[in-house]
Amino acid sequence: MSKRFTISLDAMGGDHGPRVVVPAALNVLERHRDNVELVLVGDESVLREELRKHNREPDEYLRLRHASQQVGMDEPPSQALRLKKDSSMRVAIELVKDGTADACVSSGNTGALMATARYVLKTLPGIDRPAICTSIPCLDGTVRMLDLGANVDCSAEHLFQFAVMGSVLTEAVDNLANPRVGLLNNGEEEIKGNDQVKRAAQLLQQSDLNYQGYVEGDRVYHGVVDVLVCDGFVGNVAMKTSEGVAWLINHYMRTEFRRNALTKLAGLVALPVLNALRRRLDPRSYNGASLLGLRGVVLKSHGSADTYAFEHALEVGIIEAEKAVPTLIDQRLGEAFSIGRQES
Amino acid sequence: MSKRFTISLDAMGGDHGPRVVVPAALNVLERHRDNVELVLVGDESVLREELRKHNREPDEYLRLRHASQQVGMDEPPSQALRLKKDSSMRVAIELVKDGTADACVSSGNTGALMATARYVLKTLPGIDRPAICTSIPCLDGTVRMLDLGANVDCSAEHLFQFAVMGSVLTEAVDNLANPRVGLLNNGEEEIKGNDQVKRAAQLLQQSDLNYQGYVEGDRVYHGVVDVLVCDGFVGNVAMKTSEGVAWLINHYMRTEFRRNALTKLAGLVALPVLNALRRRLDPRSYNGASLLGLRGVVLKSHGSADTYAFEHALEVGIIEAEKAVPTLIDQRLGEAFSIGRQES
Repeated sequence: MSKRFTISLDAMGGDHGPRVVVPAALNVLERHRDNVELVLVGDESVLREELRKHNREPDEYLRLRHASQQVGMDEPPSQALRLKKDSSMRVAIELVKDGTADACVSSGNTGALMATARYVLKTLPGIDRPAICTSIPCLDGTVRMLDLGANVDCSAEHLFQFAVMGSVLTEAVDNLANPRVGLLNNGEEEIKGNDQVKRAAQLLQQSDLNYQGYVEGDRVYHGVVDVLVCDGFVGNVAMKTSEGVAWLINHYMRTEFRRNALTKLAGLVALPVLNALRRRLDPRSYNGASLLGLRGVVLKSHGSADTYAFEHALEVGIIEAEKAVPTLIDQRLGEAFSIGRQES
Repeated sequence: MSKRFTISLDAMGGDHGPRVVVPAALNVLERHRDNVELVLVGDESVLREELRKHNREPDEYLRLRHASQQVGMDEPPSQALRLKKDSSMRVAIELVKDGTADACVSSGNTGALMATARYVLKTLPGIDRPAICTSIPCLDGTVRMLDLGANVDCSAEHLFQFAVMGSVLTEAVDNLANPRVGLLNNGEEEIKGNDQVKRAAQLLQQSDLNYQGYVEGDRVYHGVVDVLVCDGFVGNVAMKTSEGVAWLINHYMRTEFRRNALTKLAGLVALPVLNALRRRLDPRSYNGASLLGLRGVVLKSHGSADTYAFEHALEVGIIEAEKAVPTLIDQRLGEAFSIGRQES
């Protein structure tokens, strides 16, 4: 029998709390009968009530863990850390810390999740700052991008650490040997970039990572790399403007198809094709951002995630737990730094 | 009779040179018989030959100015400055400097254009660095974004100068009083942003610009501001990732419509709607980036611009010449800085 993995779920987090987390948990248990156990963390009476709606009682595969507090979606991280010591988010992370769980998934407030995870789990040796990493769609696949918001000002060394972590994650989760790593830059020529990016490029050239050089924003979506590294400010801007453009195109497409009776008819005819397009780019299929560089697996699900999206984040958490991603990162960082030292 | 404006055209620049510039010039002259004169700068024999194809001779509205050299699309700016003193680009800019032309348009190498324009025309008093500004489509209109690549590391003061310049340009060219100005940031809460952005926000709050606060990347496309300010690194990434996403969506849409006979039929039915969508977002309609902060009007057209796109850049050049944008920026900067001084 294969090893069992336990995932703790912040069942009160996100815009929808237990209404999304509970059915998602049940669906995932259905798919992973033999190797996954879940712990729902939150207000026990609320969780029991939600389970009842699905005709389910807690059991050895689906346990409840009461937590009396909840972190608000707009609550400052410092306040969550100081005043919410029995929040569903905090307790879910503590279950990873004490070894009860192998990973934790939360749709809660990103800043509070990062601060709490960092405080409770601590960072791996050699990691100054954890990073947020997510997959985005690109031509014929996906690219993992990091950092996405945790670190606004990054040194070259931070960018290098992100590259190592993203590379390990991609290798482990996608079973992809030697993933191609790129640095997001404002041009692909050697003279382009700010100081941090230029120095990070030097570090990457000296490393044993499969470094491909600078990548300009448009080329990201052509799938030229598997791992794309940038600081959190730039990563956030790239991610959000991408979402904005997709929204605008979708908005204008709807507008044009709704213009008159004829275009509405054309829209009906084209609907299956447009739905296929939507499925390809469905952000729910990319839900589940990894908090990398911690001594434990923590997944951030989008605050507005629905059941389908939350299940996806949970699946990512299961894989990262199975692969023991933090241990792999720790090993690789040791190697990367010893190589860096030899060559310098 | 209205005042005449003269525009100098780098007729050899861009991927297509005279094959695009000459017909675009003829079309624009056709539309502006009474108020525009053009000077085609480049290899005179090549230009005469191209004019002959259109059954046209040079005359007082369409003059030729010979230039013996050409700046390569990948030529380093320093080399262009040093070795290409008789390039079509350099001469076109010099015509602005000596008062022969009121504006200059080039599809040439951006770096060389910026360096040459800065060297020949000089910056306005109080401007440390010129910026590149372009319009991008957003919900129900456009937003002007700057800087787009000229300045990789920017101080708060630089960002403030960009805001003033973008605001003046928008007011003058779009006849829009008090354009809404935003700072591109990795979140809209006050604690978000790097140091430069936070300090720029303070400067903008103290100014008489219509400052709206931080704007996150996705909201740009919702049209929440008229002018969006960021450093050149971030601006380049935002712009290029946006292009990348649009490309990916377009690519997958084509793929889905070409899947089989049925979807191809649906594509035929939907074609007029898809064409309307394409027209709305046609990058050619946004061609013509302004080099702001110089003592003269210089427009950068996309290197791959076709005739339609180049005409658009030329039209932008005509408007900026009519409105005397550099003079307006100069006046406004004087006011902005005196206000800054009073309040500090």
